[in-house]
Amino acid sequence: MWLFTKNDKPRYVYTFGEAVGLDKNSLWGKWANLADMVGMGLPIPMWFTVTCETCAIYYENNKTYPQEVLDQIEEELVKLETLMGKKLGDPVDPLLVSVRSGAAASLPGMMDTVLNLGLNDESVIWLANKTNNPRFARDSYRRFIQMFGDVVMEVPHHDFETALQAIKDEKGVKLDTELDTEDLKKVVVAYKEVIKKDTGKMFPNNPREQLKMAVDAVFNSWNNERAIIYRRLNDIKWLLGTAVNVQTMVFGNMGDTSGTGVCFTRNPSTGENKFYGEFLMNAQGEDVVAGIRTPLEIAELDRVMPDCYKQLVEIYHGLEKHYHDMQDMEFTIQEGKLYILQTRNGKRTAAAAVKMAVDMLKEWLIDEKTAILRVMPEQLDALLHKQIVPTAKASAELLTKGLPASPGAAVGQIVFTAVAAHDQAEEGKKVVLVRTETSPEDIEGMHAAQGILTARGGMTSHAAVVARGMGKCCVAGAGDIQVDEKAKTLTVKGKTFNEGDIITLDGSTGEVFAGALEVMDPELSGDFEALMLLADKYRTLGIRTNADTPHDAQVARKFGAQGIWLCRTEHMFFAEERIKAVREMILADDVDGRKKALAKILPYQKEDFIWILKAMEGLPVTIRFLDPPLHEFLPQEEKDILALSQEMNVSVAVLKERIVSLHEFNPMLGHRGCRLVITYPEIAEMQTEAVISAACELKKQGVDAHPEIMIPLVGFKAELDFNAEIVRKVAQETMDKYGMKIDYKLWTMIEVPRGAVTADKVAETAEFFSFGTNDLTQMTLGFSRDDAGKFIKEYVAKNIFEKDPFQTLDTEGVGQLIQMAVEKGRATRKDIKLWICGEHGGDPASIAFCHKVGLNYVSCSPFRVPIARLAAAHAALKA
Amino acid sequence: MWLFTKNDKPRYVYTFGEAVGLDKNSLWGKWANLADMVGMGLPIPMWFTVTCETCAIYYENNKTYPQEVLDQIEEELVKLETLMGKKLGDPVDPLLVSVRSGAAASLPGMMDTVLNLGLNDESVIWLANKTNNPRFARDSYRRFIQMFGDVVMEVPHHDFETALQAIKDEKGVKLDTELDTEDLKKVVVAYKEVIKKDTGKMFPNNPREQLKMAVDAVFNSWNNERAIIYRRLNDIKWLLGTAVNVQTMVFGNMGDTSGTGVCFTRNPSTGENKFYGEFLMNAQGEDVVAGIRTPLEIAELDRVMPDCYKQLVEIYHGLEKHYHDMQDMEFTIQEGKLYILQTRNGKRTAAAAVKMAVDMLKEWLIDEKTAILRVMPEQLDALLHKQIVPTAKASAELLTKGLPASPGAAVGQIVFTAVAAHDQAEEGKKVVLVRTETSPEDIEGMHAAQGILTARGGMTSHAAVVARGMGKCCVAGAGDIQVDEKAKTLTVKGKTFNEGDIITLDGSTGEVFAGALEVMDPELSGDFEALMLLADKYRTLGIRTNADTPHDAQVARKFGAQGIWLCRTEHMFFAEERIKAVREMILADDVDGRKKALAKILPYQKEDFIWILKAMEGLPVTIRFLDPPLHEFLPQEEKDILALSQEMNVSVAVLKERIVSLHEFNPMLGHRGCRLVITYPEIAEMQTEAVISAACELKKQGVDAHPEIMIPLVGFKAELDFNAEIVRKVAQETMDKYGMKIDYKLWTMIEVPRGAVTADKVAETAEFFSFGTNDLTQMTLGFSRDDAGKFIKEYVAKNIFEKDPFQTLDTEGVGQLIQMAVEKGRATRKDIKLWICGEHGGDPASIAFCHKVGLNYVSCSPFRVPIARLAAAHAALKA
Repeated sequence: MWLFTKNDKPRYVYTFGEAVGLDKNSLWGKWANLADMVGMGLPIPMWFTVTCETCAIYYENNKTYPQEVLDQIEEELVKLETLMGKKLGDPVDPLLVSVRSGAAASLPGMMDTVLNLGLNDESVIWLANKTNNPRFARDSYRRFIQMFGDVVMEVPHHDFETALQAIKDEKGVKLDTELDTEDLKKVVVAYKEVIKKDTGKMFPNNPREQLKMAVDAVFNSWNNERAIIYRRLNDIKWLLGTAVNVQTMVFGNMGDTSGTGVCFTRNPSTGENKFYGEFLMNAQGEDVVAGIRTPLEIAELDRVMPDCYKQLVEIYHGLEKHYHDMQDMEFTIQEGKLYILQTRNGKRTAAAAVKMAVDMLKEWLIDEKTAILRVMPEQLDALLHKQIVPTAKASAELLTKGLPASPGAAVGQIVFTAVAAHDQAEEGKKVVLVRTETSPEDIEGMHAAQGILTARGGMTSHAAVVARGMGKCCVAGAGDIQVDEKAKTLTVKGKTFNEGDIITLDGSTGEVFAGALEVMDPELSGDFEALMLLADKYRTLGIRTNADTPHDAQVARKFGAQGIWLCRTEHMFFAEERIKAVREMILADDVDGRKKALAKILPYQKEDFIWILKAMEGLPVTIRFLDPPLHEFLPQEEKDILALSQEMNVSVAVLKERIVSLHEFNPMLGHRGCRLVITYPEIAEMQTEAVISAACELKKQGVDAHPEIMIPLVGFKAELDFNAEIVRKVAQETMDKYGMKIDYKLWTMIEVPRGAVTADKVAETAEFFSFGTNDLTQMTLGFSRDDAGKFIKEYVAKNIFEKDPFQTLDTEGVGQLIQMAVEKGRATRKDIKLWICGEHGGDPASIAFCHKVGLNYVSCSPFRVPIARLAAAHAALKA
Repeated sequence: MWLFTKNDKPRYVYTFGEAVGLDKNSLWGKWANLADMVGMGLPIPMWFTVTCETCAIYYENNKTYPQEVLDQIEEELVKLETLMGKKLGDPVDPLLVSVRSGAAASLPGMMDTVLNLGLNDESVIWLANKTNNPRFARDSYRRFIQMFGDVVMEVPHHDFETALQAIKDEKGVKLDTELDTEDLKKVVVAYKEVIKKDTGKMFPNNPREQLKMAVDAVFNSWNNERAIIYRRLNDIKWLLGTAVNVQTMVFGNMGDTSGTGVCFTRNPSTGENKFYGEFLMNAQGEDVVAGIRTPLEIAELDRVMPDCYKQLVEIYHGLEKHYHDMQDMEFTIQEGKLYILQTRNGKRTAAAAVKMAVDMLKEWLIDEKTAILRVMPEQLDALLHKQIVPTAKASAELLTKGLPASPGAAVGQIVFTAVAAHDQAEEGKKVVLVRTETSPEDIEGMHAAQGILTARGGMTSHAAVVARGMGKCCVAGAGDIQVDEKAKTLTVKGKTFNEGDIITLDGSTGEVFAGALEVMDPELSGDFEALMLLADKYRTLGIRTNADTPHDAQVARKFGAQGIWLCRTEHMFFAEERIKAVREMILADDVDGRKKALAKILPYQKEDFIWILKAMEGLPVTIRFLDPPLHEFLPQEEKDILALSQEMNVSVAVLKERIVSLHEFNPMLGHRGCRLVITYPEIAEMQTEAVISAACELKKQGVDAHPEIMIPLVGFKAELDFNAEIVRKVAQETMDKYGMKIDYKLWTMIEVPRGAVTADKVAETAEFFSFGTNDLTQMTLGFSRDDAGKFIKEYVAKNIFEKDPFQTLDTEGVGQLIQMAVEKGRATRKDIKLWICGEHGGDPASIAFCHKVGLNYVSCSPFRVPIARLAAAHAALKA
């Protein structure tokens, strides 16, 4: 664990000189960058560092550390004092320092910082005299006391504000800058009283005591709530702790030749290759970051301090070349002299990331592989959907926050039923469908709506999955809202909305707002296309899509999908004119009755397949046969049952009896998928005839159709055999009828654990496996995705698992079954083709796993196709 | 495939001489026994055999075989004719033969037989003259025509009966024996007309044509419906087909010195070592088997034909010694000469099997291992439960047949609710609880009832599992019945029963009868105990039990369980005085509220554990922590909700909201098991305190208690760790409070596929795994046991799988996961102990698998313990 020792003793503290040349991934992150810059001869205020390991020791030992830590701090402090020719706590010309956190990964603003440490009642007088700026000295001192009180002594920020306000009120001014030196002296006294009152302790006048307290405070801030949350949200797990950096203060607030700023070597928002940033004269860094005063654009600096600006421009060019990436820099000018306080690779928007990667490649700054790896696949999501204009949120009324189930933005009038959504959309209204939860019956309404809001269900609930498939904004599982579908009201935190009221959803964050917020459309740049083509060059995984309408198919094709590998057929059963025949089939007493009803569905299915095969001309379309249990097609509500009874001329009693007899306790584990065909072979017969005759019709028209049939939910080879026999027989009959030959294929899905475990057997019949990782995850983990939403949060919070396994493949568990099935499948059939088509097919981490275990393809919803292309390239490059 | 060839040509036909000395497991079963007997010098009518392979060829070649088959038959026929000095079809002194089926396994009565083949219009006259018994001749001839018409020419049996009846009516007699020779001549003519009319073909007068047709008919009967069903039911899969045996006829109906009989070397019903059987003089074998005339006891033969009897007794002793098993023999006496027609190991009742095994061991006829293997574990079930007196069924009104969910017999008055069952049983009535399906709330009522009948649910539905656990008779999934719990009526096939009406259930067959049938109690003999001790000597698997009441624990202990390894705790939550506190806990808004409610449950749980630990003193008791989702404890019906609302002083609206919010779409995959504890740690805290304080109280009393705690539904090591930490902490606190040390253990269940797949990780924390194969089967196969009952029948019927995987472990799928978990678990922890505790723990085939993969124990319901002991011994001996 120890990188260095000194005379065989542990080293807790290093000077900046020692850090020069250290790998930037070593233990104290951005301080390594500073050391880099020292090595490049740039003007950096000197410092020393207490290591991250010391923080770990601090926590391992009940918030204490060995005396050697203090000894080594003192040793380095003395060195710093010698170098600077100043002493901490000297009443004349004292050394002032900042005490900052610094971990190997950036945790921006999550941990604490103390500036101006070393000031006290004596040195403030000297500072006033020395700078001939008594106001600056008093202002620095009161800032220090406030920051120290807040960060180190845990005095509520509010109490300082109250004290300050009282003095401002007394003087009758509004701005801090309107206070003069004498006022600020009063503020210092008032602040000290606040500390005394709130903590029972005096503000420490001894700077060495201040330093010890500040170091401990920074260590403590490693485990404050927001830092813990940030690390969890950003999946930062491998850090030891934070380093503490004690650095000589430089002052941007020493008058009109001083200033401070933040700048980026390129525009972090657009990616434009133009120096970008802002600064404030006569200010400290916190003023820029906190946004209290309005800063100036960086280009203005050329006018105000031309020499400094020239130097800064030279430095930024140098740093970009050095780091081969856009830099985010902080600088301070103290009395005309420029200091660089920090540089790091800058955060950027998705659009900027794409543009910078493509630009830097053109500029020979980076190579193709680096360009690809510069853009995180997940980032692309934001580029593909409508977004709420960020400034619009500030003034909007946030009603609640649900799960960000499907990205994008939606503004519309509330409707509570799929029928209302459909009807009102026909009238040209923009609507948002609000439901307790959605069901397959709602599919048309979901399609018609701008967005969907549900009170229940997780990230992989019906609403979420379908919405993502459509690329439609969805906020799911908004537990705070109560939906009364009868009364047509949505109640949230005591406020009630009626049908027709307007709300806005942000599907990327899960936010729900009252009223209409301004929304902007996505725009795909040429750079985006260039990056996609680059990704295609390096990836080895094929990318296909899950789509079941010609529209979705076209979207996916536009995004670069190389075929449809999951075309679900059940949604096709719900359209108004078909559901009647479907119900007739379900209610039939015998095979003949069912066949009669199925014959009515056949022409519709055939038409569906004609359109979708046409939309994907030249590319394969894998059609999954009927999957859900039959009861999903029957109504549950009294009035719908009554209506159906009249429509079908079947008594309510008989209808109810059938509904009850079809009811299942655990429909996920019920009579569905290929199991339906074991009982009702005629369903597969109809679907086969529809697929093959659609292909024949298209062939007649000269359209190059590639239909493939996929049998869902296979757990036993014999199930597949039974289904396959029907498909082959009916396909042959249909081809004979047309006098044509269609080169259709027959695949299976591995989504039941038993299918994976016996993959060697299943592969005897199947030439292709598709891993349906949604169901495979449900069954392997024993988690119903419709129910687990309620407790998965607890699981993540309590670190039982790292990520929601319905979003990111559980590689340790489900992944092992996939790997087993890959090995067993290949053992039986060397050239078997393998892919996944669950929700995980669009998740970058899961795609990396698919690459690793040697799958051939991934299939995902249309709007995830670009993400999958890039993720597949990342996986190939990182392998 | 070919055992023999003759001049390098395939052999289809063998003479009896060639078969002598062949292994009795060779291809033609009982005919090998006949060959044996020829070798022993016993009087056997001569024969030749067409092999089973020929039957296979017949089916492979679209019901044809090569000409060589007929050639070889002719060749052997000529040999037989030469040997007998008679010719088939000779008008004078013709050879008459029987044509019979014979497979390597016994399929009693399932395939066809033709007797007296060779008779025709000419030879019948000779036969009449020769035997000086024209009536016998004509009777033989008309029997032959009827049998040939029925079996070979597929004439409905009924048509012959009608023709015969017409002649009897004409003469005014009732019995066949009252017809004289002239009447029988008329019958022959009438029968031939029936054949002509029904088939359009003449009855073949040429005996060689008769023979060819009869051989084909026997082959055809191999695949008649009843033979197929019998093979499926008896799991006979490895047979090639049936052999055809053409044997010289001997006649038991040649007058008063002729006769025929069936006998057993011991009593097949009781096992008593006493010659047992019956015979008829002047009759053919079919008369005895068909039960048309009432036969005499075998001992009577000593009086009628003392020489024959003496010879028979000598033979039976010899055969038992030769085969080391009880023999079931058929014999015929033709004019004073005894012929043995068949011997085979006799079928026997469970009681007889046990007695014979133990007796034969004592008699040095067999060794210990053979004695153990002589009793099929499954047979024991019948010995452990009440049975309907077999003769009582004949005259009873069978209402319907459901699934034989839990063996035994029950007679009682119908009740429709658990409360009524409980109340009326308190009044001393015997009741049968009839429900659409049962739920955990019904537990007290089930306990009070004599038996349970449900309209829904499979062999592993709640009712079935709980009833088997209680050793209580249950018929489940009787789809024909309609239960109206409100109107308190049970309707079956149009007939309606009310509360108080009496019915009888046979849980071993699934039959439901109207009224009260006579029932007999089980009685366990000393032989049973002796066999159990023998089994214990050879088995290596430990046998424990699943029990959650002191009564069940005592039963299991009496049956030889070596501990309780699945004590479910959820049933304890349902008792009237506790359910209120449980509901209070569920409805509580916060931790404090839940803790308050749990504190009320604690004393009850503690009391439960005290009693059960006491009942199992000296043996381990593994207590599984709460498993079901919480919504199972809340009422669903309007009136119960209303009652609860008043009882708890909570508004109906709030109550319903909570019920809705707890509702799960797939409760099997929901918030249950160890997952509950992740959200509500206080539940595990209470249960731990109850277990450990119960053990402490017992220790104070000097009782040797061995509590063990089992955490259910673990899929992630972290889940187990989270639970384990709570258990260890609270256990320590409780022990500290008592100032005692309890050596409790902490196990986990592997019942989620992920748990099996990551067993290496789970074993880092768990020292023991129990495979919960019920849930593991559900999740691995993706079959809900509550729902799959509806389609599993189709699966078995269509050969998708061989057996219901909820009854017999699916070794290919679920078994592979178990094996993987065994290997992974042992890799992490060499001495890890492994067992199963699902329903499969009492299934002999599954127990054999457990032995094979190296588990240490199986745990099953109390009444399965003896079966498991014997099955474990079988597994060890067969390994």
